[in-house]
Amino acid sequence: MTYCLGIVTRSGLVMGADSRTNAGVDYISTYRKLFDLSVPGQRVILICTSGNLSITQAVIHALHQDLKIGENENVHSLLTMYEIACYIGKKIREIQETERPWLERDRIDYTCTLLLGGQIQGEQTELYMIYSQGNCIQAARETPFLQIGETKYGKPIMDRILTYETSVEDAAKCALLSIDSTMKSNISVGPPINLVMYRADSLVVKHQLTLQPGDRYLEDIRKQWEHSIRTAFEQTPDVLWY
Amino acid sequence: MTYCLGIVTRSGLVMGADSRTNAGVDYISTYRKLFDLSVPGQRVILICTSGNLSITQAVIHALHQDLKIGENENVHSLLTMYEIACYIGKKIREIQETERPWLERDRIDYTCTLLLGGQIQGEQTELYMIYSQGNCIQAARETPFLQIGETKYGKPIMDRILTYETSVEDAAKCALLSIDSTMKSNISVGPPINLVMYRADSLVVKHQLTLQPGDRYLEDIRKQWEHSIRTAFEQTPDVLWY
Repeated sequence: MTYCLGIVTRSGLVMGADSRTNAGVDYISTYRKLFDLSVPGQRVILICTSGNLSITQAVIHALHQDLKIGENENVHSLLTMYEIACYIGKKIREIQETERPWLERDRIDYTCTLLLGGQIQGEQTELYMIYSQGNCIQAARETPFLQIGETKYGKPIMDRILTYETSVEDAAKCALLSIDSTMKSNISVGPPINLVMYRADSLVVKHQLTLQPGDRYLEDIRKQWEHSIRTAFEQTPDVLWY
Repeated sequence: MTYCLGIVTRSGLVMGADSRTNAGVDYISTYRKLFDLSVPGQRVILICTSGNLSITQAVIHALHQDLKIGENENVHSLLTMYEIACYIGKKIREIQETERPWLERDRIDYTCTLLLGGQIQGEQTELYMIYSQGNCIQAARETPFLQIGETKYGKPIMDRILTYETSVEDAAKCALLSIDSTMKSNISVGPPINLVMYRADSLVVKHQLTLQPGDRYLEDIRKQWEHSIRTAFEQTPDVLWY
């Protein structure tokens, strides 16, 4: 399983991902699911991937390949984040077209879902979800976050904390707590955790983090959060029976 | 959608359920999903239902019918909670046998899952989940709760708070917060909320509650919880970038 999330607020962007991949519960590996294709000073391009690993690796490979051979359309040449989202969608469609029949006939799930976040000089910071069918949606002010993979365990904390006005520092903290909640409830989501915080209009990713299993900060924040939740629980009045 | 849960601890049992039923998002109704078939002073029998409403109603009807016509096997005659779980499983199998072909050919989901909790004089307080296939599992000391329906949003709070030693009052509060988290994240789970708290060895259900939409206590506890979560969030240290 996978859990990735993106948060876009007035002051910036946060993207986070776990690194656990499993082909059945008896084959668990670690693969990076957060990719940085930025050009510092010009554009920030961050991508998170979920779904069939061979498909998502093929998509990321294709993006790099187009950069390498200097294709007209690539993540560094396109003029808006929306165009990049559509371009990635096109890559997904091309790869699915080849791979799908082979996987489908053995009932292997060939779907994938991606998050794309970033900013191009002169444009707004934006966040998109790109579906397995190649279409996409954009995060809005009313719903400033998008999630892919094992989304449910980590949603309540974001529903309660996040708005478009949330500071990017708080958004990063909320992302980490959301990932931690998911890891606690689903063992197939796990570290290393990759987290990126981007401050709007800086056009450079200055804050990124990889939290390894047993990382002391991750342990501390979890203990502190559990303690606080327990205190919050104790302060909540008992059920009023009548 | 539905969300029901059962919690069994050393000091008793809590069962809770929402009441929202939907046939598509454009047809939402209210149906009770928590049923009390107790005989005060002798046995406490509580059942929560999820899944296809025509199937679960048929199951509950069959249990009442067996009581009415004085069948040898019924929820008041059987000697252990395990026997009652198996008996309910048998009812599910009989009803599925008749209904399944008719529903399946129109691709209608015919499955259902039930929770059974309670205590029979001289026995322990026990909690079971009965699957659509008629088999069942029992909640254990290590995992003192069971959930059916939309289970994920409400699991993190229970994972963090509940153990077998949790007081039954705290278990009731935790159940309500778990249901509230689910309602906040999934609009197809909704009030009235039915909640029952049973103190082990009392053999009488003395605490039950129906919280209507807009109920003041429900609003209060939600506001208080959101405030506490926000405080807990603020107290959690910021992400430590390196």
